[in-house]
Amino acid sequence: MKISILTLFPEMFQGLFSHSILKQAQEKNVVTYDVVNFRDYTEDRHNRVDDYPYGGGGGMVLTPQPVFDAVADLKKGADSLKKPPRVILLCPQGEPYTQKKAEELSEEEQLILICGHYEGYDERIREHLITDEISIGDYVLTGGEIGAMVIADSVTRLLPGSLGNEQSAVTDSHSTGLLEYPHYTRPADFRGLRVPDILLSGHHKKIETWRRQQSLKRTYERRKDMLKKLDLTETDQKYLNELESE
Amino acid sequence: MKISILTLFPEMFQGLFSHSILKQAQEKNVVTYDVVNFRDYTEDRHNRVDDYPYGGGGGMVLTPQPVFDAVADLKKGADSLKKPPRVILLCPQGEPYTQKKAEELSEEEQLILICGHYEGYDERIREHLITDEISIGDYVLTGGEIGAMVIADSVTRLLPGSLGNEQSAVTDSHSTGLLEYPHYTRPADFRGLRVPDILLSGHHKKIETWRRQQSLKRTYERRKDMLKKLDLTETDQKYLNELESE
Repeated sequence: MKISILTLFPEMFQGLFSHSILKQAQEKNVVTYDVVNFRDYTEDRHNRVDDYPYGGGGGMVLTPQPVFDAVADLKKGADSLKKPPRVILLCPQGEPYTQKKAEELSEEEQLILICGHYEGYDERIREHLITDEISIGDYVLTGGEIGAMVIADSVTRLLPGSLGNEQSAVTDSHSTGLLEYPHYTRPADFRGLRVPDILLSGHHKKIETWRRQQSLKRTYERRKDMLKKLDLTETDQKYLNELESE
Repeated sequence: MKISILTLFPEMFQGLFSHSILKQAQEKNVVTYDVVNFRDYTEDRHNRVDDYPYGGGGGMVLTPQPVFDAVADLKKGADSLKKPPRVILLCPQGEPYTQKKAEELSEEEQLILICGHYEGYDERIREHLITDEISIGDYVLTGGEIGAMVIADSVTRLLPGSLGNEQSAVTDSHSTGLLEYPHYTRPADFRGLRVPDILLSGHHKKIETWRRQQSLKRTYERRKDMLKKLDLTETDQKYLNELESE
């Protein structure tokens, strides 16, 4: 997998790729990151990449030429791929990003992530160059860089061989469809705050039931919207009915 | 405003705070960022901050002591504040982050953002130390750092004096409640791709109507869920009815 990022602020990514799981994934050749400053592609003699909007209004708009040419250049290098690269625009108007989309993208050979800044993109970029528009959430950021980090991070950790033993992918919230149950570690008594007795009991079956119920309870209390999308067992449903009647 | 970030990977934040709008905001003294490695607070003689989960299962759990002590230390410095700092846990079980929450947080004097890693946090951190749990979206990341970046970035740009003229906060998607209309800039003809005639017409009133309708149309096509939350004018509603009957 190759992840190419088009940005005006390449330095923002230094920290991300030089630490933690993403660094290990690169070292194991699971993924290659490639950060490209699309200002390098501008034909403007003042090195500009933005201009005033047609029709008036505040803010500056990213001009099409540098983005078109940077993507064309990246695609040249992708000739040997079985599938053409996915060209993804990070923008607030995009499809809301989900774990399902991360799983879909993790099947690709190359992702090209375009990070906007200023007021927005010239619409012709959206209409003629890209395959996906993604929004990481309903909030406003100063640019697309943090969104590109979200995609790079969430996709990388799904690639075979990228996760070490320090993290398990299976029981994560949003992978099972339920929020995770509470975790506790030593000490059993921290400044008077105690770990629930059940976790110290050694009864594996009871612990398993407790954890499932805690997951259900937390999801019920915080994110009822997530429960609707799940196929629940009869036991789960019975427990939820109890919660509801409380 | 002071934004303090507790993390095991302080280097991840170097790029973020040294570029773009967040850098300018610091230089203008609109905000101070403070990145703290909570490993510095561990009393463990091997410098560890995680341990095995009680009750078994995969992954490692962040132990309470270093996080409690790092937060206590940061709070000492906050004695002169009118309001105690908000202590925010970045986690997939948290409240989904929205622009409204960003606005709420931008009214505070200090935010303490705690970034987890590994399997999760000891539950006593959640129960006894924090004021908010926030999730930036329904996807799984390797840690809380990118979530802390989302909060730092989205809150900073709302602080008075932080945004330059290159970006306008007013018409942004998720601020007006509608997705933004398409933007176009020069050239009017880019490799055969043309800017819509209306934007070149100079009729400001017609352009305004076109933009409003494009915003409504895009929101209708992509995010019907956003329309439900809005008070629409009669003209807006009439246009939406036309779209629906097409």
